[in-house]
Amino acid sequence: MRLPLTVADFLDRAVQVYPERTALVDEPGVAGSLGRITYAELAGRARCLAEGLQRLGVPRGGRVAIVSPNSGRFLTAFFGVSAYGRVLVPINYRLQPEEIGYIVEHSGAEVLLVDPDQESLTAGLPVRHRIVLDGQADAELFGDHLPPEQRRTTQPTWSAPLPGEEDAVVEEDDTCSINYTSGTTARPKGVQLTHRNCWLNAVVLGWHTQLSDRDRYLHTLPMFHCNGWGMPYGLTGMGCPQVVQRKVDGEQILQRVEQEGVTLLSGAPAVVAAILGAAATRLERGEALPGRDRVRMVVAGAPPPSRVIERLETELGWEFIQIYGLTETSPLLTVNRAPAEWAGLDSAERARRLSRAGTPAVGVRLQLAPDGEVLAQANHVFAGYWRQPEASAEALAGGWFHTGDGGHFEVDGPENGQAAGRTSLVISDRKKDVIITGGENVSSIEVEDCLYQHPAVAEAAVIGVPDERWGETVKALVVLKEGATATPEDLIAHCRDRLAHFKCPTSVELRESLPRTATGKLQKFKLRAEYWAGRDRLVN
Amino acid sequence: MRLPLTVADFLDRAVQVYPERTALVDEPGVAGSLGRITYAELAGRARCLAEGLQRLGVPRGGRVAIVSPNSGRFLTAFFGVSAYGRVLVPINYRLQPEEIGYIVEHSGAEVLLVDPDQESLTAGLPVRHRIVLDGQADAELFGDHLPPEQRRTTQPTWSAPLPGEEDAVVEEDDTCSINYTSGTTARPKGVQLTHRNCWLNAVVLGWHTQLSDRDRYLHTLPMFHCNGWGMPYGLTGMGCPQVVQRKVDGEQILQRVEQEGVTLLSGAPAVVAAILGAAATRLERGEALPGRDRVRMVVAGAPPPSRVIERLETELGWEFIQIYGLTETSPLLTVNRAPAEWAGLDSAERARRLSRAGTPAVGVRLQLAPDGEVLAQANHVFAGYWRQPEASAEALAGGWFHTGDGGHFEVDGPENGQAAGRTSLVISDRKKDVIITGGENVSSIEVEDCLYQHPAVAEAAVIGVPDERWGETVKALVVLKEGATATPEDLIAHCRDRLAHFKCPTSVELRESLPRTATGKLQKFKLRAEYWAGRDRLVN
Repeated sequence: MRLPLTVADFLDRAVQVYPERTALVDEPGVAGSLGRITYAELAGRARCLAEGLQRLGVPRGGRVAIVSPNSGRFLTAFFGVSAYGRVLVPINYRLQPEEIGYIVEHSGAEVLLVDPDQESLTAGLPVRHRIVLDGQADAELFGDHLPPEQRRTTQPTWSAPLPGEEDAVVEEDDTCSINYTSGTTARPKGVQLTHRNCWLNAVVLGWHTQLSDRDRYLHTLPMFHCNGWGMPYGLTGMGCPQVVQRKVDGEQILQRVEQEGVTLLSGAPAVVAAILGAAATRLERGEALPGRDRVRMVVAGAPPPSRVIERLETELGWEFIQIYGLTETSPLLTVNRAPAEWAGLDSAERARRLSRAGTPAVGVRLQLAPDGEVLAQANHVFAGYWRQPEASAEALAGGWFHTGDGGHFEVDGPENGQAAGRTSLVISDRKKDVIITGGENVSSIEVEDCLYQHPAVAEAAVIGVPDERWGETVKALVVLKEGATATPEDLIAHCRDRLAHFKCPTSVELRESLPRTATGKLQKFKLRAEYWAGRDRLVN
Repeated sequence: MRLPLTVADFLDRAVQVYPERTALVDEPGVAGSLGRITYAELAGRARCLAEGLQRLGVPRGGRVAIVSPNSGRFLTAFFGVSAYGRVLVPINYRLQPEEIGYIVEHSGAEVLLVDPDQESLTAGLPVRHRIVLDGQADAELFGDHLPPEQRRTTQPTWSAPLPGEEDAVVEEDDTCSINYTSGTTARPKGVQLTHRNCWLNAVVLGWHTQLSDRDRYLHTLPMFHCNGWGMPYGLTGMGCPQVVQRKVDGEQILQRVEQEGVTLLSGAPAVVAAILGAAATRLERGEALPGRDRVRMVVAGAPPPSRVIERLETELGWEFIQIYGLTETSPLLTVNRAPAEWAGLDSAERARRLSRAGTPAVGVRLQLAPDGEVLAQANHVFAGYWRQPEASAEALAGGWFHTGDGGHFEVDGPENGQAAGRTSLVISDRKKDVIITGGENVSSIEVEDCLYQHPAVAEAAVIGVPDERWGETVKALVVLKEGATATPEDLIAHCRDRLAHFKCPTSVELRESLPRTATGKLQKFKLRAEYWAGRDRLVN
C-alpha cells in the first residue's frame, strides 16, 4: 500500500492519539494569542483556516504568505494551509516592506497573513487579501468566532476532506511550502519544498534528535526559518506540548524552560549566546538555572565557538546537538550528537567535536567536489527554486545539490578501548557569497548592490567576519570615489534605510583599493583571510 | 529531489559514518560464526554476497531463501540480498521439511541458504543452489576466503553498483522480501514487502522506540519474523552494535545483557517469560540482575499478562514497550510506550495500560469496521500476497488492510493534574482463525487438516487457549469416528510427525460433538469462550 507522505500525517496522529493534550502554549499578553489549546482545538482551528481559505477562493496549490514572529496562529497555518493542499510562504518578519513585497509578488500569494506588529510594514502591498492576525480581523478564519466546544475536532484530515475536494488527494510531490532564502543573487530565491521533502526531514530529524511524546518544546527558532527546521511537524506527530517564544530573550527563555518543563529547543548560535548571557546574570545573583540533565538544544546555522558549546553543556547542563543543512535541504543534512564513545572525554574536547557539522543523517548521501564543495543527495533536497528553472538547474547540476559550503571529513580515533572511527563532516569554507549571521543568510551581493547605490561609493566588498555573539557579522570594505566623502556611519545608515537590519554592515572600513585578479574579479578570500587568521576555518 | 527509499540507505549510512564500529557480535562457538566484525566488514561481506549471487545467476528480483536461526550471516543477507535488488525469503527454521519445501517452491527461490543445524532438514529440496552457512561451503559467497583487510568496504552501495547493473536503480516499490506467514488458509502465504514498506517501518519504529547510536541491541527476536520487525535495518542505520542470540535461553540473555552492555531487545511474550524465569533463579541465589534503568524491551505478538509486564519493569527495572502489527504491516501499526503523564501511576496500573496494543504510529490510520475488526492504512502495509491476487484483494478490500483482529479504543482520563486523554487501541478478539503462540502464527485450519488425516478423526476444531508462558497455546477438540479409537497422545504424536512442533496441539480433548450453526458452520467462539471465561478479551 502506498499512501502519500504529507504533513497532514502529523496532525492526524495528534488528533487520533492526543486530542486532549496541550498542543500549544501561546505567548501571553499579545494580540491574537491563542493561549493554551489542545490538539483537538489546534486541528479544529487548522480546519477552520482551510475552509476559510477555500471560501476566499484560494485553490489547491494557491500560495498563502505569512509574516509573523513565532505564534500560535503561525503554527496553525502550517497545517491549515499545507495539510489541505495550499502552499505556505513563510516570510522573515525582519525584512523591509520592499523586500516583503518582492516575495509576496514573486510567490504569487493570494493571501497575506500578518502579525499585528508587522501590520504597518505590509500596508499597501499588492495582494488580494491581507489579513491581520489579531484575533479580530482573522476571527472567522481561525475559528475565534466559534464557541470553544465547536473549535475542537478529532477528525483526521483523511476522514474529512474539504467540501468539493473529496477526490483531490494531496500527493507527496505536491508543494508544501516555498521558503525564500538569500543566496548568491541579489534577490532571495523561493525554495520549493514538497510534502515528501518535509515529511522525511521531520521524521528523520525527529529520530536523530530523539523527539518523543515525553518532550516539551520551546519555539525559540523562528518558524519562518525553513518551517522551523520541520520541528513543528515532528512535534505535532508526537503530540508534544509546544511553547511559543516570540522573541529571543535569554532570561525569558530560562523562565519558560523552568515553568513549562521544557526539554527541547532549537536555535541559531545567537540564541545560545543569549541564554548564556542570562545564565551568567542569574549565577551572579546566586539564582538557580533550570533544565540540568533534562534539556537538549539543537543548534544550526554556523556553529558557535566550541567554548560556547562547552559552557552550555557544563554551566547549564543542557545537551548540545548540532545539525547542518540549508533551506534547500529542508534542512537536515548532518547531525552531531555525542555518541557513547565520547563519554570519557573532557568537556573541551567533547565541545570541540560537537562543533563539527556532524554525520550524514539516515538517507543522506554526501560527497566532496574536487574543490572541496559539499555535494548532497537526499529526499530532503528541494524540488527547485520557484519559477527559476536556471538557478534550479545550476544548484542541482549533475544530480547533486551544491551546498556552496566547503568541507572535509574528520575521523575520530579509538577511544575508551574501542575503535569508534566516527566520520564527521566539518564545514571549513564557503564557496558561495553568503554570510550567516545570527542564523540568517545574508547575500553579500545584495548588500554590495545597496552600497553601490550610495553616490560616494566606487567599490564595495562585503564579507563575513567572526563575531562572538552572531557567529559571523557583516563587514563592508569600501573604496570611495575620487574626491567623494562619506563616513562609515553614513554608509551603515544608508543600508539600514533600505535593507532588513540584520543584513546591514556592523562595520565599514574605507580602503584605497581592493585585491582583484588579472581579469578584475574581486578576491574576497584574501579580504576574509585577515579576519579569520589563526582559526581552523573561514566560516563560523 | 527524489531518491528511492531502499534498505541500502541503512547500510550506506553505517559505512559512511561508523565503518570501524562493532556491527556484529555473532554467537560464539557455532559453525559459520562471524565473531566480532565492524560495519566496514559487514558491508564488505554483504557486497561479496551480492556479487556471489550475481555470479550464481540470480537476477535482479530473483528470490534467495534463508533457513536459519539468528546469525551474523543472516544479518549479512538482509543487505547482501535486498540492498542489491534481490528478494530475501526468510523461512521459519522450525518448520518441517515439507513445509519449507512448499515455501521454497512457491516463492520460486533460486538459492537456499541453510544454517548447518538445518542442513539435514532441507536435503533434497528442489532448489537450484542449496548452500550451507558453515563458513566452508559458503566461504566465497560471504568473503571468508579473503584476507581480513579485503573483507572491508566503506563504499556505499550508491557509489559502487554491481558490474553491469550501473543503470538499474533499485526502486522503492521493488520487492525487498517475501515473508511467509500462517493465516486463514492451510498453506502459509507470502507477504510481499517493498523497500518503501521496510524503510518507512524501520524509521518510524526506530523513532518511536528511540533507537539511537547509543543503543546496543540483542537479537532475541528471530530475524525471520517479519525481518526482525525491521530492527536490523534501523540498527544498522544508526550504527548500533548488534549481538546475536541464537536461541531463547533466559540466563544466557541475562549474561549477554551484562557482558555486552545491551540496552535494547525485542521478542514475543515467551522471551519475557524466559527472562523472568532466569531472573527468579538468580534472585533465589542472591545474584544481581543486569540492565536496571538501562534496558528497553519491545514486545509484540499477543501481549503478555499485565503481571508479566509489571515484573519486567519492577524486578528487572527494564522499560517495557509494546507494539502491535502483523507481517502484512511490516509490522508496525501501533506502539505503546508510557507517556510522561503516567509517571505517578502505580506499577500495576501502569502495566495494565502497557498491555494495550497502543497508539497508531506516525503515518498509520486506524478505524474499526462495524463488526469491530481493526482496519489499517499505512505505508507499512504490504504490496500483496506473492502470486495470490485473490487473497490480496480480499485482505485489502475497500482500500483498507483487514487485520483479522477485533478491537476497540480506550481513552486515558485526566491524571497528574492534566488531561492526557491518550487514545489506545486494545485488541480484544480475533476474527481470523489464527492462534498466536510464543510469537508464532498458527493456522487453525492447517492443524485441523492434519488431524483429519488421522484415520480415527471424524471432526476436529483447533483453538487457542490462554497460557501463562506462551500467551496462547494450541488446543484440539476432536470427535472420533464411530467405533474408532485414538488417545490424545496418539493425535499429538500424529501432528508432531507432520507439522512444525510449535503448531501442534499441546492438549487434545475428545468430545461427543462440536457446536455448529444450522448451516453446519463450526461455532468456534463458543468453544473458545469456556477457556477465556473471566477475562476481558478472547485473545492473548
